[in-house]
Amino acid sequence: MAKGKRRQPATRFTVSLPVSLMGTLDRLQGERRYANRSEFVRDLLRAEVVKEEWKEQDGETVGVLVLVYDHHTRALADKLTEIQHGSHDMIAAALHVHLDAHTCLEVIPLRGAAREIRAVANRLLATKGVRYGQLVPATGQRLH
Amino acid sequence: MAKGKRRQPATRFTVSLPVSLMGTLDRLQGERRYANRSEFVRDLLRAEVVKEEWKEQDGETVGVLVLVYDHHTRALADKLTEIQHGSHDMIAAALHVHLDAHTCLEVIPLRGAAREIRAVANRLLATKGVRYGQLVPATGQRLH
Amino acid sequence: MAKGKRRQPATRFTVSLPVSLMGTLDRLQGERRYANRSEFVRDLLRAEVVKEEWKEQDGETVGVLVLVYDHHTRALADKLTEIQHGSHDMIAAALHVHLDAHTCLEVIPLRGAAREIRAVANRLLATKGVRYGQLVPATGQRLH
Amino acid sequence: MAKGKRRQPATRFTVSLPVSLMGTLDRLQGERRYANRSEFVRDLLRAEVVKEEWKEQDGETVGVLVLVYDHHTRALADKLTEIQHGSHDMIAAALHVHLDAHTCLEVIPLRGAAREIRAVANRLLATKGVRYGQLVPATGQRLH
Repeated sequence: MAKGKRRQPATRFTVSLPVSLMGTLDRLQGERRYANRSEFVRDLLRAEVVKEEWKEQDGETVGVLVLVYDHHTRALADKLTEIQHGSHDMIAAALHVHLDAHTCLEVIPLRGAAREIRAVANRLLATKGVRYGQLVPATGQRLH
Repeated sequence: MAKGKRRQPATRFTVSLPVSLMGTLDRLQGERRYANRSEFVRDLLRAEVVKEEWKEQDGETVGVLVLVYDHHTRALADKLTEIQHGSHDMIAAALHVHLDAHTCLEVIPLRGAAREIRAVANRLLATKGVRYGQLVPATGQRLH
Repeated sequence: MAKGKRRQPATRFTVSLPVSLMGTLDRLQGERRYANRSEFVRDLLRAEVVKEEWKEQDGETVGVLVLVYDHHTRALADKLTEIQHGSHDMIAAALHVHLDAHTCLEVIPLRGAAREIRAVANRLLATKGVRYGQLVPATGQRLH
Repeated sequence: MAKGKRRQPATRFTVSLPVSLMGTLDRLQGERRYANRSEFVRDLLRAEVVKEEWKEQDGETVGVLVLVYDHHTRALADKLTEIQHGSHDMIAAALHVHLDAHTCLEVIPLRGAAREIRAVANRLLATKGVRYGQLVPATGQRLH
């Protein structure tokens, strides 16, 4: 347990990992110059807490949803457009990038309460045919 | 016929207009400070020639297609996406603006030979359900 | 003067053109399958009236401003961003296309009263270094 | 050590955390229905490995850079535009969202080798005045 004035009291727990994942962990820890595994895991957890706090904040905020999908999936573009229009007060515009003959990248800034942003993002992500998606907090700050 | 050294030889023709359109013409001519109707019509024709020259030029150029449509038209978003992906070498990205619960504004920069740009634009414009569209030349210059 | 029941009363005026422009007019008229020069000019005038009506309408509407500029002009990107943010209630988002190492294409949907849209567009167009620009009416319809 | 046929051999290490962070960890673990802390940490590590693999892959890929900045910072828009144009072969277009009178959200899809994407993203992120940024892998797949 830490004694220094600045230190918070600490506690411990044990992580069990497959050997191969431990090998990768050790490699990343070295590359990123962490003193030990514990420090690395603490930073991952802190980043997770920041994301979590964004999700739970009150007031208006902004998130960016990145979606990748195959536009050949039947009616998928129609469904994604429909969902977005249903929330047109939160989604001013979307950027559609034609990655190749099959693959669409759609980048959708969303503005509103974090709870509402997540709800719309989850509906878009859950649409059948979406291959990949990620919601990125775009600001932790209150807007003017 | 013009006599000045700088003047090109001129010729004439007669335009027949409904009286109501003539009234609007006269109002616009006055507001835009044209000396007479003939001068106003000359400027409209010159603007048309500039557009025409853009369409016929060789080499790579850029146009911006502005489309307005109602996304509730069955499979329309799918069809527009399909056409754009078929020309993904000419269309890097498109901006989709959700105007209201029904109305989509899609702005599509197109890059390529003017002839090819017009061909893709015409396919998109001719898609059933597109309410309005306009192809705007975005540069008369050669790109580097 | 028209005699048919559906015809509006017509009137005439004479247009004087340089011979070279008349040649182009005749070529375009043929290509576009107009019966005569008068019909071609009537269509150009009607298109102009539509644009004019868009500019004068009341209520909220949408226009798309297409700008081409050389980003090497000192502080130009800063100035254009500043003007847009000053009207961020009218401009939700802009699409910036990097045409080449020098040339920017910026496409800016604007929403508001036609008078205000034109005022912001004119400020952007008048910014030193903007090489080309055009404001396109994106809808003649009232939004929901 | 695991004995099941499908299980990989496992190993352990100990993580030391401030008590407050442990509290948050336990809350998140419960909300996300992980059986224990170890499972939660394993998933965080696996997500980190996926990101790392994206960074190290060969061949063309796509990332999306999300930037938030205050456009009042002197010459910032100019600098960001300059950097993007210097890599215009990797950046087809960017979406600029005017969040409020001060705050810009810029979303930039980047296409190229992961190493090059990261290099450009890092230059943009390191530009003075950028308040927040995140590079999101947009596809782990090879493009056609």
